[in-house]
Amino acid sequence: MKLNTPKGTRDFSPAEMVRRNYIFDTIKGVFKKYGYQPIETPAMENSETLMGKYGDEGDRLIFKILNSGDFLGKMPAELLDGGQSQIVNRQSSIANHLSEKALRYDLTVPFARYVVQHRNEITFPFKRYQVQPVWRADRPQKGRYREFYQCDIDVIGSNSLLNEIEMVQVTDEVFSKLNIPVTVKINNRKLLAAIAEVIGAPDAFVDITVALDKLDKIGEEKVVAELKERGISDASIEKLLPLMRFSGNTTEKLEFLKTYLGENETGQKGIAEVSEVLETAQRLISNKTVLELDLTLARGLNYYTGAIFEVRSNIEGTLSSSISGGGRYDDLTGIFGMPDVSGVGISFGADRIYDVLDGANLFPELTSDSTQVFFVNFGDKEASHCLGLVKQLREAGINTELYPDSAKMKKQMTYAHNNAIQFVVMVGTDEMESGKIGVKNMTTGEQSSVTITELIALING
Amino acid sequence: MKLNTPKGTRDFSPAEMVRRNYIFDTIKGVFKKYGYQPIETPAMENSETLMGKYGDEGDRLIFKILNSGDFLGKMPAELLDGGQSQIVNRQSSIANHLSEKALRYDLTVPFARYVVQHRNEITFPFKRYQVQPVWRADRPQKGRYREFYQCDIDVIGSNSLLNEIEMVQVTDEVFSKLNIPVTVKINNRKLLAAIAEVIGAPDAFVDITVALDKLDKIGEEKVVAELKERGISDASIEKLLPLMRFSGNTTEKLEFLKTYLGENETGQKGIAEVSEVLETAQRLISNKTVLELDLTLARGLNYYTGAIFEVRSNIEGTLSSSISGGGRYDDLTGIFGMPDVSGVGISFGADRIYDVLDGANLFPELTSDSTQVFFVNFGDKEASHCLGLVKQLREAGINTELYPDSAKMKKQMTYAHNNAIQFVVMVGTDEMESGKIGVKNMTTGEQSSVTITELIALING
Repeated sequence: MKLNTPKGTRDFSPAEMVRRNYIFDTIKGVFKKYGYQPIETPAMENSETLMGKYGDEGDRLIFKILNSGDFLGKMPAELLDGGQSQIVNRQSSIANHLSEKALRYDLTVPFARYVVQHRNEITFPFKRYQVQPVWRADRPQKGRYREFYQCDIDVIGSNSLLNEIEMVQVTDEVFSKLNIPVTVKINNRKLLAAIAEVIGAPDAFVDITVALDKLDKIGEEKVVAELKERGISDASIEKLLPLMRFSGNTTEKLEFLKTYLGENETGQKGIAEVSEVLETAQRLISNKTVLELDLTLARGLNYYTGAIFEVRSNIEGTLSSSISGGGRYDDLTGIFGMPDVSGVGISFGADRIYDVLDGANLFPELTSDSTQVFFVNFGDKEASHCLGLVKQLREAGINTELYPDSAKMKKQMTYAHNNAIQFVVMVGTDEMESGKIGVKNMTTGEQSSVTITELIALING
Repeated sequence: MKLNTPKGTRDFSPAEMVRRNYIFDTIKGVFKKYGYQPIETPAMENSETLMGKYGDEGDRLIFKILNSGDFLGKMPAELLDGGQSQIVNRQSSIANHLSEKALRYDLTVPFARYVVQHRNEITFPFKRYQVQPVWRADRPQKGRYREFYQCDIDVIGSNSLLNEIEMVQVTDEVFSKLNIPVTVKINNRKLLAAIAEVIGAPDAFVDITVALDKLDKIGEEKVVAELKERGISDASIEKLLPLMRFSGNTTEKLEFLKTYLGENETGQKGIAEVSEVLETAQRLISNKTVLELDLTLARGLNYYTGAIFEVRSNIEGTLSSSISGGGRYDDLTGIFGMPDVSGVGISFGADRIYDVLDGANLFPELTSDSTQVFFVNFGDKEASHCLGLVKQLREAGINTELYPDSAKMKKQMTYAHNNAIQFVVMVGTDEMESGKIGVKNMTTGEQSSVTITELIALING
């Protein structure tokens, strides 16, 4: 029997768990400090809640749950007639009948469902955080898993740009606390729409966005070829060239845009929004975080309507893909029948953050949770005596273990060593008689003979 | 569109999350104090890891994941030939081809897989804890959900009864901390096997166990009828009657068993084991917990070989089903090719514990994590000024929010009230000029005008 976890999924050992919890605790701590409240939603959602929300590509990556019990009984007869060759061609229709539930693909759509379903219990604006795994049937590769944790915050029910600014503040504080210098790239869908308008190709908004997004990777020539292929006129492409060729810092970019977009109303709105977010956030964040206007930033998800964020690590040699991202969506709950509610959110990818910290050796020493005192087991009588001492240490809040078997000394000491336990206690017949406790500090090598009260003081001090 | 979570699954609101986290934190705190280390395994396992481990009934309740992509293409042609009427009869064979992965049914079998897969990285005895959801396609009812959290500890790789004793200590400490008085029922599979032997029906071990388990609910007469139906001889049943009719406390039960099981070797071993566990645990636990030998305790899972535990709340009117349970298994890793490793574990059902605490109004006041200070938003200029003050409070570790919109006062105060925020800060043009901050304690009604330093002291003190 081949023993492993399914492709793209992983076990987490105690050492990995301590580091993962460090990331989760840091992120949650910041979320709480900004007033976000926790919710959780089930791993499974009804398929109709998820399907059609992530585009065709996303839909394909959703893990579907086979109906339990008589899963073929309710299948329309015609779908199962005609033998294998014909049945195979009807896979997607058949899948709809085989499965009514699916694993969540992200936390945003389940959150939208939550908000609409519980709208009467919620006080808006609703600031929630959610830290849970999501599942995607993606091809696994470095930094991409089929099960991974997202740590999301969203503010829903407020149009104020203060929320966008807060997203940048939270991002800055999370990564400052984790000691990861980052660049927060900001763009605005309104700017992208205005660009499409001023070059005379408003309907080609998506094509232009996709092409701009690739500029860094494939260069101007290929982007132009792609735009032509997608049917954008030469005149429009000509007008786009100055934007593609422009380089400068954020202030220069904003100046350029003011001229480039001119009187365009959407454009002016977009410029005003990014300017306010950039300026106000800049004076509130630490100097470890770089804030940057990036006009080529598009992000795949269709539901964004205003600000778009993406965060990358500035540590050389670490993961180049984004470790956090989000944006403003004006009508996410509309898909569930509750229109005109605006929200803004950002998602932190815990697994990618782990890879960055691990790759750059940035995890601090993390031992506070592990066992502090280890009692050697010298036999039934001694162990029975030790149980009372162990109990007293635990009552004093000290994490303590007694080895369960009276195994060879070497085996017991290997256990203490491998589990990085700092204090080893030995209570044999001599100590039982004298009422003293032999203790060795494994870090310093110091040995002493103490009372239980002295032992507790020794460990806590 | 009907908006809800799948049958038997639930959303958790912020208020519920705070209470759930109280349960998880309490349980994990005790686990750590006893030296257990955290691991996590993926939600999905390969089907072959799970199938066949929980009996036919369990297998039926496992949620299967539909293969992604071309899930019908690899199906043997003969399974899909013959039209719907014939195909429906081949459901279980078809399911095996449609699905290669499944959601975990408990934490014990994935843990056994983990131990065998990572055996070379683990120092034994391995004390691990694991707090994760599990999924079962059970019929939902009160106290029974399709997605629920288990909190498990196991010690694997040690035969010592000190581990059984520790299970009782941990149970006592968890429920003492949660303020739930409980009865810990203990039995031992060896006693059950010995009973079957001494009444001359060793092969009917399972039948007798199942029948004894029902004694409380259906009474002697029906149990006898059921035993007859299952082919147990009258002579055997006659010998079982004294046991079924015996009532007494734990000491009396042990005395009775010594006579009843006589020279039976398995029986003597069983008596010695439960005696040691009961006696030693009794002197280590608090007086809130009742320890009881219960010979009718069987528990469904076949893999137990020694001690069996089950925990029930002693609060009248709360859930009568078990809120925790476990036992000793001598060969769980054997199913994955690593024989002769003994383990013992116990599982705490967080969702049932929640229902008990909720039903008995035993949740303490839990507010430490929520927002402490709320800033009213009087307009753009005031809000911009407040951002700096809010930043200083957060830097002092105080959870603080500024309302994002300059909405009507009533709306903002309702928000603060509904989110149970204790301090409301008002900084209008007057305060901006004077540099003072108006603050109201919503609990006491006290109002004052303070500096930022005084405000921080006020909240932290």
